[in-house]
Amino acid sequence: MKFKRSERLIDMTHYLLDHPRELVPLTYFADKYGSAKSSISEDLGIIKETFEARGIGVLQTVSGAAGGVKFHVQVTDEEALKLIDQLCSIFADSDRLLPGGYLYLNDILGDPKIVKAVGRVIASAYANAEIDAVMTVATKGISIAYAVAGHLNVPVVIVRRDPKVTEGSTVSINYVSGSTKRIQTMVLSKRSISEGSKVLIVDDFMKAGGTINGMIDLLQEFSATVAGIAVLVESEEIEERLVDDYLSLVRLSDVNVKEKKISVSQGNFFTIKNKGSV
Amino acid sequence: MKFKRSERLIDMTHYLLDHPRELVPLTYFADKYGSAKSSISEDLGIIKETFEARGIGVLQTVSGAAGGVKFHVQVTDEEALKLIDQLCSIFADSDRLLPGGYLYLNDILGDPKIVKAVGRVIASAYANAEIDAVMTVATKGISIAYAVAGHLNVPVVIVRRDPKVTEGSTVSINYVSGSTKRIQTMVLSKRSISEGSKVLIVDDFMKAGGTINGMIDLLQEFSATVAGIAVLVESEEIEERLVDDYLSLVRLSDVNVKEKKISVSQGNFFTIKNKGSV
Repeated sequence: MKFKRSERLIDMTHYLLDHPRELVPLTYFADKYGSAKSSISEDLGIIKETFEARGIGVLQTVSGAAGGVKFHVQVTDEEALKLIDQLCSIFADSDRLLPGGYLYLNDILGDPKIVKAVGRVIASAYANAEIDAVMTVATKGISIAYAVAGHLNVPVVIVRRDPKVTEGSTVSINYVSGSTKRIQTMVLSKRSISEGSKVLIVDDFMKAGGTINGMIDLLQEFSATVAGIAVLVESEEIEERLVDDYLSLVRLSDVNVKEKKISVSQGNFFTIKNKGSV
Repeated sequence: MKFKRSERLIDMTHYLLDHPRELVPLTYFADKYGSAKSSISEDLGIIKETFEARGIGVLQTVSGAAGGVKFHVQVTDEEALKLIDQLCSIFADSDRLLPGGYLYLNDILGDPKIVKAVGRVIASAYANAEIDAVMTVATKGISIAYAVAGHLNVPVVIVRRDPKVTEGSTVSINYVSGSTKRIQTMVLSKRSISEGSKVLIVDDFMKAGGTINGMIDLLQEFSATVAGIAVLVESEEIEERLVDDYLSLVRLSDVNVKEKKISVSQGNFFTIKNKGSV
């Protein structure tokens, strides 16, 4: 059965979007469609141009005998800015204020459109980095962690506050929460990370950074390294930040419980991105 | 700027895959590409045929003034069977055995490829159902819940065992675990579900069904209804199942700790699907 170009373009688009950061040999498509490699090559040229022109992502060509194409997610500055502006106005809604100055975020973290978009933007910052896994701590950061990991095509490992029997044997550490100065525990299943892994830490909210610091300590126990740290929101009201090198989409500068006012601004995404340090 | 058909097909494929179950008017594409509606109509015909022929999904055409197209995820029986067979062999690996006859599932639930595929297969069973939200309980079921919700384009709500300040005011219920007969508590943020919502319950593992029963009770407190129940694995070793109407991909029939043997078989997916009861 032969395939027309139009059918190939549609099916290849679906396949590439579904297999990010995987090297797909030209022969895979040639065999699948019963087409000459030269036709597949032309198809991929059209897809590459359209993906770039429409801000969908980048199609990297790897030449040679073991060559093929690899799709990386990539967002335009316009797309990132649009999302960050949207997030700022969502966060500024005073209905989010909870007793104690906490913010209600469940609706944001549960909305598949927002989570997908956040995942795309964060993943695009690390699309070319070597990353073997995404790590987060239960529960709130999990949706973003999966959205990022889906685009990077790597597994998610979830750190817990409490050990459960279904985790098997675990490694546990104590850490000091940066804002409350309390000693807390986190555990991670022994099987979840292999030695030498490069791990991207993702979380929804960073105050002083104690929890993220705990995850960094935990990674050392696994002889794994931190490939990056990305958070949806960082809080600015901090005397001493425990974590330096991170990416944030939104910055919470002030929460005034009395006047019911939440002040938010852009996080450091564009600063970090333009420095090219991720 | 005019777009060639090939570019339109690639961009429309991306857009439709990214916006499942959303009615997209033909004028949206016509304006986006500066094309006549008749050309867009032809494009959509090609996409529809290819999506169906390649098992990507269904493109539903809604006619009339408020008409357009809607993409639904749809998997072929071959794809579902391939996934279920793969899951069965992954589950049968005796290395998963934990003390007490529990199984280690974190690697499966953290693998983006498996989770995506499970999400596609479960969502396809409910693609035409009226569903307003997907509900799960922290922590293990979250990845599958998001994968399903992404395809259905609905939010995820997460039930917790313990209330946290960031949940805001919560509704809490006590329930009896079906297998251990212990009384347990679950809480859900008051804001998370609106009255009358139709909710699909998704979880990783169902033994007697006590936890799922708890979620059903919780939904009643919110005047919401159960639109379906789907689990990755059900355990067969149960005297009395508390939940009747559910969909499962894998069935765990026996865990022999002494002989380190795990027996698994297909769940009820095809039985339920062929009855057309979901």
